Amino acid sequence: MAAESVPFTQSLELALTGAGAPAHAVYDRALGDAARAAAQLKADYEAGALELLRVPERTDDLAAADEAAAALKNNTTDIAVLGIGGASLGAKALADLRPWGRADMPRVRVFENCDGASFGAALASFDLKTARFVAVSKSGGTPETLMQTLAAADAIERAGGGKYLRHHFVVVTEAKPSPLRKFAETIGCPILDHPLGVGGRYSVLTVAGLLPALLMGLDVRALRAGARAALAPILAGKPSFAEEGAALHFALSDAGRLRETVLWSYTDRLKTFGPWWRQLWAESLGKHGKGTTPVAALGPVDQHSQLQLFLDGPGGTLFTLVTTDTDGTGPRIGAQTAEGIGAAYLGGRTIGDLVAAEARATTETLAKRGRPVRRIHVPRIDERGFGALLMHFMIETILMGRLMGVDPFSQPAVEEGKVLARRYLEAGR
Amino acid sequence: MAAESVPFTQSLELALTGAGAPAHAVYDRALGDAARAAAQLKADYEAGALELLRVPERTDDLAAADEAAAALKNNTTDIAVLGIGGASLGAKALADLRPWGRADMPRVRVFENCDGASFGAALASFDLKTARFVAVSKSGGTPETLMQTLAAADAIERAGGGKYLRHHFVVVTEAKPSPLRKFAETIGCPILDHPLGVGGRYSVLTVAGLLPALLMGLDVRALRAGARAALAPILAGKPSFAEEGAALHFALSDAGRLRETVLWSYTDRLKTFGPWWRQLWAESLGKHGKGTTPVAALGPVDQHSQLQLFLDGPGGTLFTLVTTDTDGTGPRIGAQTAEGIGAAYLGGRTIGDLVAAEARATTETLAKRGRPVRRIHVPRIDERGFGALLMHFMIETILMGRLMGVDPFSQPAVEEGKVLARRYLEAGR
Repeated sequence: MAAESVPFTQSLELALTGAGAPAHAVYDRALGDAARAAAQLKADYEAGALELLRVPERTDDLAAADEAAAALKNNTTDIAVLGIGGASLGAKALADLRPWGRADMPRVRVFENCDGASFGAALASFDLKTARFVAVSKSGGTPETLMQTLAAADAIERAGGGKYLRHHFVVVTEAKPSPLRKFAETIGCPILDHPLGVGGRYSVLTVAGLLPALLMGLDVRALRAGARAALAPILAGKPSFAEEGAALHFALSDAGRLRETVLWSYTDRLKTFGPWWRQLWAESLGKHGKGTTPVAALGPVDQHSQLQLFLDGPGGTLFTLVTTDTDGTGPRIGAQTAEGIGAAYLGGRTIGDLVAAEARATTETLAKRGRPVRRIHVPRIDERGFGALLMHFMIETILMGRLMGVDPFSQPAVEEGKVLARRYLEAGR
Repeated sequence: MAAESVPFTQSLELALTGAGAPAHAVYDRALGDAARAAAQLKADYEAGALELLRVPERTDDLAAADEAAAALKNNTTDIAVLGIGGASLGAKALADLRPWGRADMPRVRVFENCDGASFGAALASFDLKTARFVAVSKSGGTPETLMQTLAAADAIERAGGGKYLRHHFVVVTEAKPSPLRKFAETIGCPILDHPLGVGGRYSVLTVAGLLPALLMGLDVRALRAGARAALAPILAGKPSFAEEGAALHFALSDAGRLRETVLWSYTDRLKTFGPWWRQLWAESLGKHGKGTTPVAALGPVDQHSQLQLFLDGPGGTLFTLVTTDTDGTGPRIGAQTAEGIGAAYLGGRTIGDLVAAEARATTETLAKRGRPVRRIHVPRIDERGFGALLMHFMIETILMGRLMGVDPFSQPAVEEGKVLARRYLEAGR
């Protein structure tokens, strides 16, 4: 595998200087610790001890995914992805990469939240003779996904499609006994195996995310190639952006100056990337009384929403602004038109020019107020750039967990609520 | 105006007891201060000094809104609402109230973020002979909205519709000179006057929110009736939920125990209510080094995303769980079906039953961990219930500002970035 360059750049300059910066010695020590944690990841990769790190180079699982996608897309207008949390947020994020307004492709919607009213209404709006469903649950026991799946199957049966049920479903779940797998075996639909060693919030580059991506017409090989590029420095034992990012977070939190971390993307193509990353950060690092609040922000709209608090509130926040090449993109405003309404400054400029100017202004305004700002620039947010961002943030989160001394792969606190909910459901409240 | 009962209930029981509760004396003092602030609101209402409080009882602006909506809906398939921040988040929130899958109504989309690529693609996907645009900007000078509006007009002209331009647009802006108003006057399209004394983030119940609501087929009179019901206790000088909520927040923050406040809604109908409220809280209260981070969470999906951090992270968080009557709603799972796949506990239960059991389990799990939890239950999230929630949270935010000693109606820190962005745009970067 030839080493390819990482398709984005990162600058910590405005985070390591100025009033909000951590002390140099603290950052340098954190960077050294992050490098040692990265070396351990390299060793884990070589020993085959961390399956996530092998996912970007996999090709053995693509033929089955291609086949399942082709069958699902055949003769349909609506495909519903059923999943929740780690089984849905990656697919939702990938959906923002889709080209706009393609009437020639089936509508693919991800039902990430579980809601009887909206899901019932969605089922009623589908043509149940042709609608398809992809049910994703790593464990195969997620009650929300099971209920959605069984409700969809029931609706198809009541619409007279009982004997074609297997053509309506594909299931993604682990290769071990579970209710969802039993469902798939009972109706005889295709099953794609969810890797056993990759947790839900790290699963976007496995078939759990790639099957939805294929249904949306995305280039999944380029996604994985981007992920490989972001991982390459780690596997080569070279400095990586992920180490820098984790070290910056840790240096700030170690000094008690990190309450929250804001990921602010200046493009609609990363709109749902934010909530995907929010789960990754919150669930991986929020434990044992530790953790920082991840806040997702989006482009110009959050200048009109959260910026006042960011600039003038209590602080303790690290900002990561993610930009792309927007200069000169989108509709351009005529000079005469702009002048005619008394807004000459917009004349000859594109909407993308405005977004670029605003991202720059926001960055500088935050820095001037002494707020630490990291800048990430991704020239092209295509599958390759997106795959690289996904892998970058997964590695950064894992490294941050190592620095903090918490296990980034567990979620121990949420089990109690699951047990309680099941008890209340069984008792019929 | 007959006093009508508030269409939701609020319980602070789990916030005022347990390890995370504020001291009783502190809460009681804050409640007294909140009552005094509420009495001042009553006096402001009576003196006509706070226009927001008069909005719910207005009827004089409805005929023009009805007329504009009817004209916009005539002979179209796509209506785009152009606005950002206070001019878009309310309309986005209202969109979640729409019935699902109504093919007989025009598609109404709110372009809340400004993005050249996605807006350009959206324009290209519209039938520009029939597409309609509603441009909303209180000041009439918002550059994002101006650019979107001019780009849409240009696209229509290039599609040959130049002489029908006025039929494609309605503008909502203040009755004073501005670029957007000049645009409307130039093309001769209808203008609805944005109230001068109601800021963008408080404007959802004015024509700025009501025109989009009418386009979506919502009952705007019921929205305002709900708002009146939530306001009634204040105007009658009686204790209100808003006073309790503000006092709870202030008592916790006064003790240094409030880093953030989470609004967690267990229904898709409040999905975008969260981001609307987030702007309201962040921009109104985040100033002079004060403020708390507002976090929006949604139903079951955030149990699989943010809950681990909420339960086991550093704390300092108040949780407001908003529930509705979901028991028995949505698809029901057959007992045999559930048993057949080894998930008997789901048999005979609906998706709504599961959501209700999970909301209860989450509430109790948070409380058991000593996290303060406020419960709000809205039996029906229809226009009336929604309008009441909108007004409740606006009043609560204003009262919290009074308790904190900050002006809830200003946003002083964001001006600097606007000036910088304009300079960079003019300089062509």
